[in-house]
Amino acid sequence: MAEDTTTTDQGLPAEAAPASDRVLLRRGAHLGRYAAADVAAVLDAGVIAHVGVSTPAGPVVIPMAYGRDDERIYLHGSVANAALRAADGQDVCVTVTVVDGLIFGRSAFHNSMQYRSVIIRGQAERVRDSAAHVRALQLVSNHVTANWHTARPATDAEVRQTMVISVPLDEASAKVREGGPIDEPGDVDGPFWGGSVPISTTFGQPVGSPDLPAGVAPRAAIEGLAGRPVHVPGRR
Amino acid sequence: MAEDTTTTDQGLPAEAAPASDRVLLRRGAHLGRYAAADVAAVLDAGVIAHVGVSTPAGPVVIPMAYGRDDERIYLHGSVANAALRAADGQDVCVTVTVVDGLIFGRSAFHNSMQYRSVIIRGQAERVRDSAAHVRALQLVSNHVTANWHTARPATDAEVRQTMVISVPLDEASAKVREGGPIDEPGDVDGPFWGGSVPISTTFGQPVGSPDLPAGVAPRAAIEGLAGRPVHVPGRR
Repeated sequence: MAEDTTTTDQGLPAEAAPASDRVLLRRGAHLGRYAAADVAAVLDAGVIAHVGVSTPAGPVVIPMAYGRDDERIYLHGSVANAALRAADGQDVCVTVTVVDGLIFGRSAFHNSMQYRSVIIRGQAERVRDSAAHVRALQLVSNHVTANWHTARPATDAEVRQTMVISVPLDEASAKVREGGPIDEPGDVDGPFWGGSVPISTTFGQPVGSPDLPAGVAPRAAIEGLAGRPVHVPGRR
Repeated sequence: MAEDTTTTDQGLPAEAAPASDRVLLRRGAHLGRYAAADVAAVLDAGVIAHVGVSTPAGPVVIPMAYGRDDERIYLHGSVANAALRAADGQDVCVTVTVVDGLIFGRSAFHNSMQYRSVIIRGQAERVRDSAAHVRALQLVSNHVTANWHTARPATDAEVRQTMVISVPLDEASAKVREGGPIDEPGDVDGPFWGGSVPISTTFGQPVGSPDLPAGVAPRAAIEGLAGRPVHVPGRR
C-alpha cells in the first residue's frame, strides 16, 4: 500500500516478471507478484473493484462489482452509467484491495496495513457479442457465490439494459503485505509496543425480502454464505 | 454502486445540493447525500481510500491510508512514491467504499450490494508547511484509532521521508445503499428467493511483534480494537 513507508521496502520482484513497466512495482517491490495465479487469487478473494477512468473533467474512480475468467476482468453496470460508457475503448485502471489487518509500528512512521491488492491496466472494451455478454453477466453474478442459475432467468430486456466492459488481465500486478511492522533496529529493545491487529470479515445470516411469500425456499449457495469468511474464493 | 441496475433507481437528491455537476449522482440519484456530515460519516467509517490520478500512461488507482479534518482529506506515502508525487497539483478522485452486505434479487439483474461510498474530486496539494505536515500525519495515523501519541515520537527524518497530499472536501458526494433488492413487481409472488446477506467486519486480538521485549505493555487504544466493528468512526 502506498503508505507503507518503511525504508526496508526494497528487493527483487517475485519469480514472474511484470508484463510492462507501468505495472512494475517500485514502492514495496519485494511485495510484488506478477504470476497470473497470484493476480487471480487476489481477484477471487475480493468483492469490489475500484475502476479509474480519465475524463475531460479529471479522473473518476467508481466502485463496481466484477467477475473474471482466465483472460479478462468483467465490470458491469447500467447502459445509463455515463462513466462506464466513457470507459469503452479507453485506458482504465482496475484496482481490487482486501484489507486483512492494521500494522502499528513502534514509530507511527512504520504503521501500515496487511492487505492484498491487484492493479490491472489496460483498454476497456464493451462486451457486445450476445453469448459473451450473457456469460460475462454470469461471471459477475457468480463471483462471490453461484446464484445465477437459481435466480429467475434473465430476460432479453434485462440483458440489454446491462452493459459489461472487460479489461485484459495481461497487464496486472499483485501486492501482498502480511505480518507486522518492520521497525527501526534501534527501536526493537525500546519501551514502545509494535504489532498488528487482524481484521475478520464474515457473512451473516441471509435476510429474506419482507415481501417473500411463505414457503419460498432460500437458495443453497446464498444460505451457505452464513458464517463464511468473505475474502476467500467463491464458486464461479 | 455502478452495478445497481434497478430500473427504479431514480428520484430526488437528498436535502443538501451537490457542490458541482461532476459530483452529482445520476445513477441511483435518490441514494445521493451531499451534506458534509454525510460525507464525513462515510469517511470516518472507512479504512482505505482508492486514489485515482491521470498520468500520460493512463489512469492509475492506488489504495492508500487516509485521515481527514473538516476541510480536507489527507493521503500519505513515501516521497519515493511516483504516483503520489505525480498527483501534486493535479486533479484527482478519491473514493472510499465500505461494503456492508450483498443483495440478491429474484432476478440476478437486481443483484447489488449494501454499501456506503464517498467520491471526492479536486486538486491534490502537497502539504509543505511543517506544522501542518506533522498534524496531517497525526490525522492519518489516528484515523482508525488514536496511536500517534503512544508511539515512539517521530523524528524529523521520518517526517521528511513521508509525503502528504491533501484534497479539499468541498466537491464530494456520498452514496448509501441499504436494505434488500428492488425486484420487479411481477416477481414478488413468484417462486424465487430474494434478500440480502450482511457482512460483518471485526478487529481481532492484537498480535505483538515477535521481537517485543518482555514487559512491553500493549497500547490501550490498539488493544481496545479487539472485538470492535471496523467500519465505525475511530478516535481522531
